[in-house]
Amino acid sequence: MSDVRVAGVGMTPFGKSPERTARDLFAEAAGKAYDDAELGPDVVEEVFFGNFMGEFAETQGHQGPMAAKAAGVTAPATRVDSACASSGAAVRMGIERVRSGQADVVLVGGAERMTNLSTADGTEALGAAADALWELRAGITFPGAYSLMANRYFHEYGGDREDLAHIAIKNHANAVNNDLAQFNKAIDMDDVLDAPTVCSPFGLFDCSPMSDGASAILLASPEFVEEHGVDAPVAITGTGQDSDNLALHDRDDVTKTPAAKRAAEQAYADAGITSDDIDVAEVHDCFTIAEALALESLGLYEHGEAIGAARRGETTIDGELPVNLSGGLKAKGHPVGATGGAQISELTKLLRGDHVNSDAVSDAEVGVTHNAGGTVASCVVNVLEVVA
Amino acid sequence: MSDVRVAGVGMTPFGKSPERTARDLFAEAAGKAYDDAELGPDVVEEVFFGNFMGEFAETQGHQGPMAAKAAGVTAPATRVDSACASSGAAVRMGIERVRSGQADVVLVGGAERMTNLSTADGTEALGAAADALWELRAGITFPGAYSLMANRYFHEYGGDREDLAHIAIKNHANAVNNDLAQFNKAIDMDDVLDAPTVCSPFGLFDCSPMSDGASAILLASPEFVEEHGVDAPVAITGTGQDSDNLALHDRDDVTKTPAAKRAAEQAYADAGITSDDIDVAEVHDCFTIAEALALESLGLYEHGEAIGAARRGETTIDGELPVNLSGGLKAKGHPVGATGGAQISELTKLLRGDHVNSDAVSDAEVGVTHNAGGTVASCVVNVLEVVA
Repeated sequence: MSDVRVAGVGMTPFGKSPERTARDLFAEAAGKAYDDAELGPDVVEEVFFGNFMGEFAETQGHQGPMAAKAAGVTAPATRVDSACASSGAAVRMGIERVRSGQADVVLVGGAERMTNLSTADGTEALGAAADALWELRAGITFPGAYSLMANRYFHEYGGDREDLAHIAIKNHANAVNNDLAQFNKAIDMDDVLDAPTVCSPFGLFDCSPMSDGASAILLASPEFVEEHGVDAPVAITGTGQDSDNLALHDRDDVTKTPAAKRAAEQAYADAGITSDDIDVAEVHDCFTIAEALALESLGLYEHGEAIGAARRGETTIDGELPVNLSGGLKAKGHPVGATGGAQISELTKLLRGDHVNSDAVSDAEVGVTHNAGGTVASCVVNVLEVVA
Repeated sequence: MSDVRVAGVGMTPFGKSPERTARDLFAEAAGKAYDDAELGPDVVEEVFFGNFMGEFAETQGHQGPMAAKAAGVTAPATRVDSACASSGAAVRMGIERVRSGQADVVLVGGAERMTNLSTADGTEALGAAADALWELRAGITFPGAYSLMANRYFHEYGGDREDLAHIAIKNHANAVNNDLAQFNKAIDMDDVLDAPTVCSPFGLFDCSPMSDGASAILLASPEFVEEHGVDAPVAITGTGQDSDNLALHDRDDVTKTPAAKRAAEQAYADAGITSDDIDVAEVHDCFTIAEALALESLGLYEHGEAIGAARRGETTIDGELPVNLSGGLKAKGHPVGATGGAQISELTKLLRGDHVNSDAVSDAEVGVTHNAGGTVASCVVNVLEVVA
């Protein structure tokens, strides 16, 4: 399939802004994407908007038209919900729309307002990404679900809290100079190990935060980019998505995330690459263990081996394969519906050379994003390449 | 663009089944679609699932994987929310996926569980389709919003409660023998005019009910249908979608629904037809006035003239252009996320000749569905044709 150019990217700073609405956040992100592309809203032919918990945070569903208006667009506009993979799924829909020739330019991304809810209400809202009928009824929360995965992983393959801590330390270090990140604060091993326990083995620093924010991406056909003189050196050359049983108890092995593996296989085949070609990755580290599971599902590590990757320095900023140079969900923040688009935004800038951490990957040509929903019941993988 | 065949259709009976979950309902609808197509779930390559108020009714978001599992499918699966047009939007996404060659067979549709909520909670949930920030805060409900549209329409173009009543009477009459419809009961003018007022000018019979139900459609490429010997004489030959400002107060004229007009224009151009070619229509009559607005936006009537169509007998079962032979949302029921798919299911059967009301349109070759979200801030129009 033909590639799709990333014509413009935009993000709000992620963090706490409980007074701002989701539409206000998306308007800012879209405005930045227009500026980045040097284009206006009039070129947009369709909008796919990722949002997960608007019903809980703002009593607002049906956010497609809301997002389009915020972005100054009159066009078909649809809200996409794949939980924490919502804007990843929106990106993939946009890719398909451009590839099929149905549109030359689409606006994709998402927004989430979360911190206006209490922690208890926010936790309940996040639970809607799990299987409400079975898992929520049994009292599970998201830290609880991922802790089951982590503890089983430790049991089967080894690894411990210190391995996880190295992932958090790495991602915080990457975010120190990222103005868009929620936390610009380095942490050390004592910080992580001494932090309050959320759900064993996770302490506070193993968990991504509640965040507000938005992301917006303008995707365009190569023909449009050429015709309009848009500087768009990065393309999405491959995309994949797959699903798994919503509930953990319906899966054969909770130490594996096969939806991510299948999504990656689709995306690599689509792009004509293998995992060996990947120079840099943004993956869905909603909890520290999730980064290890992601790297294994992406084929970057054998199963059971990614847990020590950060500890060994392989995925740090000066490692062989830098992972989450943005700070990841852990330190950049995780406004659920915005995260998949933010991964595209950050990775595009890393590859273009205009990200604060671009120097660490100055030779990188191929990057990958991994955006997961729930306990990876949904996953979207995109391959980005420097093509111009 | 190439057509997409409707390989199989399925619906649960619409009505009150508060004890059944959305996934249970969708499993039944999908099973019927498989039976109709004489295919199994193994052929499905992607799922687009329409749902609007799962967060409120079941504390469940992220329903893509849930729906896929209920339908026995392991494939990319995404929840689509365009309020009451959710499964219409899901159908359009499926059409694009097949047309672009990304999939040979997709499963689309939706489900909604509503009647387990109290009327007050259900009304609040439905409010999430309006602009929560402005309209809900001002105390508007959906009957309230549509009543503003109806009263302004009367002021500008004439028409009265009796005109609206003829629409309700017609749609109830159409549903009398439809086993899938929520109400199999004919009503007369006195029933409508003497019913309790919901919001002037609407009485109880001007409003579609709270309903539980699901719809499922198997869409397939012409090549797949031929190769597998699937009997699929009906194709979706055109599709269109557009959006409008979410809030009524942001629109120039609340007696018009331009998102529907643009969606129709796209769909007709896509199919290579004009409104003159249409033999039968299923339109979004969430309130009686909405049917009139739909017919005008579809170009079947001049603006201001559709209000009397049912009264004049033009859209009745023996009229020139039968509308809502299924019973429409009014009498068939309106489980929000299932409605767009149900329109495709019913219209397909009408065109194939296996619907209880098919005799009324035995010569029909072209039909159209009109599925609206909110106060038509979203609209999806599909053109169905008999092609084999």
